[in-house]
Amino acid sequence: MQSNILNNDTICAIATPHGMGAIAVVRVSGSEAISVVSRLFKQNGKPFDCEKVISHKAYFGQIVVDGEMIDEVLVTFFKGPHSFTGEDSAEISVHGSTYIQQRLLEVLMAHGIRLAEAGEYTRRAFVNRKFDLAQAEAIADLISSESQSAHRLAISQLKGGFSKELQIMRSKLVEISALMELELDFSEEDVEFADRSQLKALLDETLSHVNRLTDSFRMGNAIKNGVPVAIVGATNAGKSTLLNALLGEERAIVSDIAGTTRDTIEETLNLDGTLFRFIDTAGLRETEEVIEKIGIERTMQKMKDATIVIGLLDINDPEINKTATLISSHVNPAEQQLILVVNKIDLGDNPSTSPYLAISAKTGQGLDELKSKLIQCCPRIGNETTMVTNLRHFEALKQAQSSLLEVKKGLEVGLPTDLITQDLRQALYYLGSITGEITTDEVLGTIFSRFCIGK
Amino acid sequence: MQSNILNNDTICAIATPHGMGAIAVVRVSGSEAISVVSRLFKQNGKPFDCEKVISHKAYFGQIVVDGEMIDEVLVTFFKGPHSFTGEDSAEISVHGSTYIQQRLLEVLMAHGIRLAEAGEYTRRAFVNRKFDLAQAEAIADLISSESQSAHRLAISQLKGGFSKELQIMRSKLVEISALMELELDFSEEDVEFADRSQLKALLDETLSHVNRLTDSFRMGNAIKNGVPVAIVGATNAGKSTLLNALLGEERAIVSDIAGTTRDTIEETLNLDGTLFRFIDTAGLRETEEVIEKIGIERTMQKMKDATIVIGLLDINDPEINKTATLISSHVNPAEQQLILVVNKIDLGDNPSTSPYLAISAKTGQGLDELKSKLIQCCPRIGNETTMVTNLRHFEALKQAQSSLLEVKKGLEVGLPTDLITQDLRQALYYLGSITGEITTDEVLGTIFSRFCIGK
Repeated sequence: MQSNILNNDTICAIATPHGMGAIAVVRVSGSEAISVVSRLFKQNGKPFDCEKVISHKAYFGQIVVDGEMIDEVLVTFFKGPHSFTGEDSAEISVHGSTYIQQRLLEVLMAHGIRLAEAGEYTRRAFVNRKFDLAQAEAIADLISSESQSAHRLAISQLKGGFSKELQIMRSKLVEISALMELELDFSEEDVEFADRSQLKALLDETLSHVNRLTDSFRMGNAIKNGVPVAIVGATNAGKSTLLNALLGEERAIVSDIAGTTRDTIEETLNLDGTLFRFIDTAGLRETEEVIEKIGIERTMQKMKDATIVIGLLDINDPEINKTATLISSHVNPAEQQLILVVNKIDLGDNPSTSPYLAISAKTGQGLDELKSKLIQCCPRIGNETTMVTNLRHFEALKQAQSSLLEVKKGLEVGLPTDLITQDLRQALYYLGSITGEITTDEVLGTIFSRFCIGK
Repeated sequence: MQSNILNNDTICAIATPHGMGAIAVVRVSGSEAISVVSRLFKQNGKPFDCEKVISHKAYFGQIVVDGEMIDEVLVTFFKGPHSFTGEDSAEISVHGSTYIQQRLLEVLMAHGIRLAEAGEYTRRAFVNRKFDLAQAEAIADLISSESQSAHRLAISQLKGGFSKELQIMRSKLVEISALMELELDFSEEDVEFADRSQLKALLDETLSHVNRLTDSFRMGNAIKNGVPVAIVGATNAGKSTLLNALLGEERAIVSDIAGTTRDTIEETLNLDGTLFRFIDTAGLRETEEVIEKIGIERTMQKMKDATIVIGLLDINDPEINKTATLISSHVNPAEQQLILVVNKIDLGDNPSTSPYLAISAKTGQGLDELKSKLIQCCPRIGNETTMVTNLRHFEALKQAQSSLLEVKKGLEVGLPTDLITQDLRQALYYLGSITGEITTDEVLGTIFSRFCIGK
């Protein structure tokens, strides 16, 4: 697990976003960080004594190399372990020209400092026990969070609430597991250190907890990446008009926020702090029956990716209830939520639209109610909400779940202790892999390679 | 000049480049900076006492608003006048999600802090006499510098070498001017406090200095923005092949540097730290005479924008010297440099290419010599080189030059002292406007509006 704790050579990277800005920050971390940066740093032409460095203090001066001033800078030194990585480190705040940023990296590299790999700062912080693996992953989520809900889930995970839940669960299982392992040492004596009924109760408690967590994944992941919404209906039911009407007023708000330009490519909508991402589905076609079926099947296939389905009905559809039933039949109520909506109420003669939500995408009537419905479909996320948002965590929990079920079954049919402990060990392994109590270099490599460089 | 010194309300802005990164920095400056940021800042849930703030110290903690944690942050407080702006200020280093950056600005604004205008931090620093106007402008140049030479010119200006030259020049003139103004008070007595021969000598010295500076503008500005190079020659002389050959190997280097992607749109080449920017010119056409003339005229017109002209000759051109003369006749030797090159030496039978530089754009022969020639055309820029790179400075110097010439003429023809002092005052005004000793709100507004927000 800690193979790379030895690999504490000094690394550097630009920590701020790419491009030109008022300032940019270059981070240096490792055993040589303070000495090398001190050597390059001058104050009014005078050398800077690295022995006198005060941790967490910002010094104004110049980076000077071979008599050439690279820039006026602000340098803050951090003495390990009181730094982000836990190592000695320095943050150099330079004027944000791409030339200066690049030149400073070159100079640092010429002094034996290596360019950091993606996520290497956070990885070092993890190795130095500044936080666990789930918290490290929360940092990546935090950086990429685009909505209030996604941000809150990441903050909650960063604060360690999720990790603590897992640790409490796991430590109880560890205790019982230790007793059972002990029994194996005395197997010939047929003793029972671990109380089996206590184990069963603990198993049920743990399983219900794990189930709650795995159940939260679909929504947690949806909130992190934007809740997928499919608008399904006949081609002339007004799907595009509805989408445009929903997006219309929100777009202006989105475009005010820097860096969200990609929202203009995907159809997304931020409602009350939650990001909704619309899935493009073809309209249910009303042509010859065979073709119609293919059309329906395609749309239904895409519907499966949605967490929320808006079934859009046309008030002039003579078989409105039949269409509603058709759409409903393709929704999986365990994993998806359906909102049935009747459109074109400005046109229809029939004032009765019950039990459907009545709207006019054209005039905007009923749109606020539809938005409220969308918001209601998602849980309210607070800073303390624990939801699984990470596929790796979900898969580990699923594996732990299946091992725990094996343990339970084993106890019920009276399997020998050594077989039961084997499954228990598996469950402990998977639970421990989430927070990184148990991990491998390969797993760490995969996780941190998804980070950006400089983090 | 200092009308906005009163306008010291508190401002905030994102100082790092737009977009997502490991970290982003939000700057807050003004009388309320420390108190408001302290109020939002918590350390492990405990409030932070702004009375105990130590200047230049980085504090780790959380930004918490109404019980909701926005982010884990590093806050460095700077007590005025020991800050960039000279005011109380704070730098908040957050995780670089666009959501967090935006949310933090919203929170600060909700606490009465205003979004900074472009260049407002630097403008405040100027108003608080942290540096003069030419130095403030150097910061903008520094941020946008793309090459070593441009960077060095900006650093030199930032260090104040240029400002000091101007101030010395100006203070000598001020001294004499004061004596002459005194004469006006005693005009009826016909006294001469100011030594006219001393004034003449000083005028000559100042004028030669101003001339040197204005002369440096064309090249200084070219180096700042990329030295414009025109390759002129007949359509089949190999212009495109030469351009591609020159760019070929360099392109890979350029693309390694983040943020220089626009170089792929313009044809630029970084040679030995200086950026060369190629001007697209049509080949000199060899068709019917009238059309040929139009073609030549168009190309010659474009040639005027070039600092360096590469006259590309074809070794198989039977009238090679005539073509060379034609090109030369359109070059202004006072402002432009000409390099005459014979191409296709791999094809030609005639081994004598003297006095021209011999190359083969196809095989690459002679290209290194051509590159050396390009580099030689530009002055070597050190950290102490003073060149005028700024159009505003150039125009002010030109005005000062013309006023000083008027003073000189006035002295020669024996104009009355009051008329001479009037011209002298004009010269002092223009020289003072460069460093901002004399300036108006309008001028400041124009200068700082060209800065980015957050600077």
